[in-house]
Amino acid sequence: MSTQTNFDLVLFGATGDLAMRKLLPCLYQAHVAGLLHPQGRILGVSRSQLDAEGFLSKVETNSKIHVKQNFSDDQWASFIKRLHYLTVDVTNAADFDALAATVKARTETENVIVYLSTAPKFFAQACENLANVGLNAANVRVVLEKPLGTDLASSQQINTDVARYFKEEQIYRIDHYLGKESLQNLLALRFANVMFEPLWNNKYIKSVQLTIAEQLGVEERGEFYDITGALRDMIQNHLMQMLCMTAMEAPASLDADDVRDEKVKVIKSLKPLTVESVNENVVRGQYTAAAGMNGYLEELNVPAGSFTETYVAIKAEIENERWKGVPFYLRTGKRMAGKVAEIVLNFRDLGDHIFENSQAAPNRLVIELQPNESVRLYTQVKTPGAGFKVETAALGIDLGKAVAGRRQEAYERLLLDVINGKLGLFNRRDELEAAWEYVMPILENWADNTQAPHGYAAHSWGPEAARELLARDGNKWHEEQ
Amino acid sequence: MSTQTNFDLVLFGATGDLAMRKLLPCLYQAHVAGLLHPQGRILGVSRSQLDAEGFLSKVETNSKIHVKQNFSDDQWASFIKRLHYLTVDVTNAADFDALAATVKARTETENVIVYLSTAPKFFAQACENLANVGLNAANVRVVLEKPLGTDLASSQQINTDVARYFKEEQIYRIDHYLGKESLQNLLALRFANVMFEPLWNNKYIKSVQLTIAEQLGVEERGEFYDITGALRDMIQNHLMQMLCMTAMEAPASLDADDVRDEKVKVIKSLKPLTVESVNENVVRGQYTAAAGMNGYLEELNVPAGSFTETYVAIKAEIENERWKGVPFYLRTGKRMAGKVAEIVLNFRDLGDHIFENSQAAPNRLVIELQPNESVRLYTQVKTPGAGFKVETAALGIDLGKAVAGRRQEAYERLLLDVINGKLGLFNRRDELEAAWEYVMPILENWADNTQAPHGYAAHSWGPEAARELLARDGNKWHEEQ
Repeated sequence: MSTQTNFDLVLFGATGDLAMRKLLPCLYQAHVAGLLHPQGRILGVSRSQLDAEGFLSKVETNSKIHVKQNFSDDQWASFIKRLHYLTVDVTNAADFDALAATVKARTETENVIVYLSTAPKFFAQACENLANVGLNAANVRVVLEKPLGTDLASSQQINTDVARYFKEEQIYRIDHYLGKESLQNLLALRFANVMFEPLWNNKYIKSVQLTIAEQLGVEERGEFYDITGALRDMIQNHLMQMLCMTAMEAPASLDADDVRDEKVKVIKSLKPLTVESVNENVVRGQYTAAAGMNGYLEELNVPAGSFTETYVAIKAEIENERWKGVPFYLRTGKRMAGKVAEIVLNFRDLGDHIFENSQAAPNRLVIELQPNESVRLYTQVKTPGAGFKVETAALGIDLGKAVAGRRQEAYERLLLDVINGKLGLFNRRDELEAAWEYVMPILENWADNTQAPHGYAAHSWGPEAARELLARDGNKWHEEQ
Repeated sequence: MSTQTNFDLVLFGATGDLAMRKLLPCLYQAHVAGLLHPQGRILGVSRSQLDAEGFLSKVETNSKIHVKQNFSDDQWASFIKRLHYLTVDVTNAADFDALAATVKARTETENVIVYLSTAPKFFAQACENLANVGLNAANVRVVLEKPLGTDLASSQQINTDVARYFKEEQIYRIDHYLGKESLQNLLALRFANVMFEPLWNNKYIKSVQLTIAEQLGVEERGEFYDITGALRDMIQNHLMQMLCMTAMEAPASLDADDVRDEKVKVIKSLKPLTVESVNENVVRGQYTAAAGMNGYLEELNVPAGSFTETYVAIKAEIENERWKGVPFYLRTGKRMAGKVAEIVLNFRDLGDHIFENSQAAPNRLVIELQPNESVRLYTQVKTPGAGFKVETAALGIDLGKAVAGRRQEAYERLLLDVINGKLGLFNRRDELEAAWEYVMPILENWADNTQAPHGYAAHSWGPEAARELLARDGNKWHEEQ
C-alpha cells in the first residue's frame, strides 16, 4: 500500500541519535520501497548551525551504517532530493517564521508532520511556537517521542500543554513496540483465526507471561538510566502495550479509536496496585557483577548505592470476565541470560488423562516477537514405540522464513502511518495516562522503600524473588518449564 | 516397554507373502530392540514340506530384503534360535497332534499365539482343529488376518465359527492401520492436549476429510483386486478406523474395551445409508488410461467391462451431539495424483473480520499419517508490510524429525501387543460388523447398478463426481483449497 499522500515532514532533533540511527534510515527504506509520495519532503531541523550539505553528509554517513546492504548510491541520490535543512532553536519563537515560510509555501492543503524528536521539556514550547505561526492547523500532525513524562503528573502536564495547541486526533504518541510486525501479527493471530478465540480466556489459560529481556547492561548510559529505570523505560510503555494486545477484546474494526478503546479497557480493568500490595506483587531487581561483567553499581556514572531497578517483575490481574483469576506476569531486565521479547500463554493442566505418563505437560503457546518472529504451540504427542506414553513437541512457525515480503522496521511503519494519518498504532492520551496510573503505586512504594533491589547475577534470568513471585501461584517462568 | 511375557507364536502361512514380507522381519526388529522375551519361540507352520533349514534360509533371504540397513549377522544368528518349523496342513486334523505336542511341551502356563495368516476360508477349520488338540485354552490367542469376509453375512459367519472355539477376548482381528504410530498419535493429540478438545466439534469444525490415496494401480493383482474393490479393501476397515479415531469421544481409559466401546459408538452413530441414498452420497470411480498408464480395464487379468471400483468417496454423517451437521468425507483410490493418508479438519469460516482482505481463509488442521508423519495447523498471520492484510501460513511439526525414538512398523507393534495381551489396537466383533453394516447398502446398490463407475484419469485426484459431492455442500477437497 503505497502512500499517495503528499507531505512535509519536519523533523526536530534532526541531528540527534534517534533521527540518525532510525528515522532517516527508515525514511530512506520507505523511499526505496516506493512508499513515499514523489513530492514528499523531509525538512531536518535542529539548533545546529549546519548548511544543507553538512546535514546531508551527516545523514549519509549514518544511514550507510544503519541501512547496511540495502544502501544504493542511485537510490540515495534520489532520496536526498527530498531532504532539506533549517536551523531552528525550538525555544526561539523567531526561528519559527522561517520554518513556517518554508513549510507553508507548499503545504496549506497538504499534510504537515512535525516530529518532535527532542527532550520532552521542549514539547510545550515547541507546540506554542508552532501554533504562533499557524503550524497547528488541521493539516498538521505532531509526533511525540517518549519519554512522555516521568510519572502521571508530568505526563498529564505534557499532554495538557500539547492539547492547548493540538487536538487529540492530531497527536501521534510513539511507542515503537507498536510498529513491530510481530506485535501486529498478534492481532492477526487472535482475530483472523477461528481456533484461538475459544481458548483465549480463563477457562483454558492458566497464566500469561510477557517478557522483554535484554542481554546488554546500561553500557555508557548509566547517568541517563539511573534517573529512568526499567519501570519507566519498559514496563509503563512497551510491556503495557504487549499486555493490551494480548488481553484485549476484539475491536469493532481496526479504526484507531476502536482499537484504542479496547486497549484502554484492558488497562482500566487491571486490578489497581496499592503502595502496600506492591510489596507482594512487584519485584525490583538490580544486576550484580558476574562472569567478568560489572554489576549495575559498578557501571560508569551510576551513583553509589543507587536503588534504580534494572529488572522488574509484576504480577498483574485483569478483573474482567475473560481473565479473572489468570495472573499476567510482566517482566523486563537488562543483563538477562537471553535477549528475547515474547508472550507465553500457559494452558491449564489437563489433569488426569488416559496415557501412561502420570501427567501430560500442560500446553503452551509461545509467541516470540524478537529476536525471531515465531509462534510455537507446545503439544503432547505420542512417544514412538510400544505403549502409550506422550511427550512434548512444538507445532511451530518461523514467520521470518514462512511468510514472504519485506519487514518494515518499526519506525518505518510508524512514520508511514503518520504520513497516511493512521492513528491506530499510536498511544491515545487516556491510554497513556491509565498506564501511568497503574504504575504510580510502584513508584511511590519504591520512593520510600529502604529495601535495596534484589540482586541478580549478570546474564542470569533475574532475582530469586521473581521466581518466588510465580512459585506462590504454583507457576514457573517459561525458561524453567 | 520390553515384554517379559514368554510366548510361543505359531504362525500359519509362514511361507506366505505377509509372513515373509512383514511378520518375520518385524519379529526380527522386535528381537533386535530387545522387546521379545529371551525364551520366546516362533513356530512357522505351513503345508510346505520344508525342513527347518529350508524355512530358515527362505526367511533369511526375505528378511534381508525387508529389514534392509538394520540387518546384522550377529543379531540374525541369535534371532533364528527362536525359529522352528513344522509342516501342518490346516485342513488335516491329524497334523495338529504334532503341533500340539511341540507347543504344549513348553507352554501350558505360558502364552500361545496362533496367527492365522491364511485365507479366511480356512479359519473355521483351523480353529476347530486347534480346539481338538486343546490349543484353544485360556492361554491361547488367535490372530485373524483380513479380509474377514466379503460382506456382513460372511463376516458374521467367520466370527460365529471362530467364536465356537475362542472367546472374544482371545481373538485379535488385525487392521494394520491401527498399528501405525501416526494413527495412535491422533489419540495423543486429541486426549493429551487441553486445546484441541474445545474445538473438536460441530461448533468449530465445518467438515472433515479422510483420505487414503495410492499412486500405484492394481499392478499384477488385477484378478484378486477385481473381486475385492476399494470399498472392501480400504473403506470398510482402514478408513472406518480413521473415522473412529477422529470422531470418537474420550475413552475412560486406554483399556481395550473402553477404546473399542467408543469406536463402536461412532460407527453406530453413522447415519445409515440406504440403497437409494447411496446414489447421492457415494461416488464409485475407476481409473482410466492417462500419461502412458493403463486404465483399470486394461490391467492384467481384469475382466472386460468390470464395474469394480478403484476409487470410492463417501459423505458420511455422524448423528450425535458433537458432530451433527458436520460432513465426514471419506475417500480412497488407486492411481491417484499423490500417495498420502491424511485427516483434514476444516474449521468454520470466521465470517466478517476486521482485516483488509475481504475474507480470511478458514483454518485447517491437517494430520498427515503417511508418507510423512506431520501435523499442520493452517493459520492466518499478518502479511508483512503496510496495512493489515492477512495470509495463510502453517504452524507445523514433522514428527519424524521432531520426536526421537525408533518407530515400530505397524505389524511389529501389533505382534508385540498380541504377545503382551493388549487388545486395544484390534477390532472387536461388534465394531467390525457395524462397519460392514454401514457399507452394505453401498454393495447392494452397486450390485444392481447399471451405471458404470465414474472414470478418472490415472494420476488425477479422482472423478469429477467426487468434486461435485463436496461442492453441493459448498466444500472442496483439501488439495483444491
